[in-house]
Amino acid sequence: MDPRLRLCGRWQKSTRTSSPSSVWVRDASDLRSIRRATQRVGAALPPGGLNLLINNAAVLPRGGLQTTSPEDMQSALHTNVLGPANIIKEFLPLLRAAVRAGGRAGMSCRQAAVVNISAFLGSFPSIEETYDFLPAISYRMSKAALNMLTLCASTELKRDGILVAALHPGWVRTDMGTQEADIDARESVEGMLDVVFSLNEKDTGTFLNYKGKVIGW
Amino acid sequence: MDPRLRLCGRWQKSTRTSSPSSVWVRDASDLRSIRRATQRVGAALPPGGLNLLINNAAVLPRGGLQTTSPEDMQSALHTNVLGPANIIKEFLPLLRAAVRAGGRAGMSCRQAAVVNISAFLGSFPSIEETYDFLPAISYRMSKAALNMLTLCASTELKRDGILVAALHPGWVRTDMGTQEADIDARESVEGMLDVVFSLNEKDTGTFLNYKGKVIGW
Repeated sequence: MDPRLRLCGRWQKSTRTSSPSSVWVRDASDLRSIRRATQRVGAALPPGGLNLLINNAAVLPRGGLQTTSPEDMQSALHTNVLGPANIIKEFLPLLRAAVRAGGRAGMSCRQAAVVNISAFLGSFPSIEETYDFLPAISYRMSKAALNMLTLCASTELKRDGILVAALHPGWVRTDMGTQEADIDARESVEGMLDVVFSLNEKDTGTFLNYKGKVIGW
Repeated sequence: MDPRLRLCGRWQKSTRTSSPSSVWVRDASDLRSIRRATQRVGAALPPGGLNLLINNAAVLPRGGLQTTSPEDMQSALHTNVLGPANIIKEFLPLLRAAVRAGGRAGMSCRQAAVVNISAFLGSFPSIEETYDFLPAISYRMSKAALNMLTLCASTELKRDGILVAALHPGWVRTDMGTQEADIDARESVEGMLDVVFSLNEKDTGTFLNYKGKVIGW
């Protein structure tokens, strides 16, 4: 089964909403596209707001400093950093509505949460071990910036009761991860869902892998 | 005395070159401007190449997630991240020429070095202590990405004998640092020069403050 459908299924079950609608931001680097998606989600949602926002879109130029074009550098920062920053900002009213509607103490994705899909390659301690194998310098720079966005946003949105965390999906056999990767999409998504649904206020501002283990920034 | 003149003075003394020319990249976010500067520096330099490249240009939007415009987010990433990445890349032939001309073992700014002026605000451990006082989310994201560029470039350029490090100048009384800051420009620049001229191969891929103390990424 398409893992996105499984996500929708678990999501429906956990939130007990009758809204199965799936709205995608067509181009995460395009502010107009983000605003159109915000409006569509706002119109489709029940008045309870948006409980869980997952920033998953990303591009992965593979080159190092000497082999990455200026255009690929820019594209990685626009799609992987500016996109999620603008998406979180635009969806804030809907996330705040969920906190108000939820009325629970503490933080969780049943209240309001932002999950940024980051990557181990964006972790500073990973460089020594992984750089020669896969430089991906622009991707690493973008994920370090996304991690910083995660930590800053978690600090800023704590007072609103909105949880913000970064997740590493593992090295997954997809078009991006190649067929040489460690795990399949099912294992990654099932792991991440278990992590996402277990997040609480202690986890806001952390970077976790798909098994729930903390990764150093 | 203008600290930039002191820098030129020390620089001339240390390299024993008779070339006092000062060439600035007019707009660090503009690739054509970078390429023009590379050509001018290449033409002005003696055949010994370029020993030291300092990436200092930066913008500092002060807002948090909710108060920073998409334009300021983009500007911070373009000037503070894409600029230095493209500048290092374009100046590589001149830095490599310096390594060949120098013919020394080990790494130093008397051989070939890149120093990226970063900031404590771009360090992950700094957030808890400093975010409420100065959110500057786009600046922090850009400096985290610049730090990642520093670490990746240091790994990639080790085999060329080119040293790459990030420096935190301190909180300096300038237009950017405001008059509330800790130290004046002279103290910052004198400290950074002492650090820069003491760098060796053990320091490549590190993040140091203007007193030479290591800062956690």
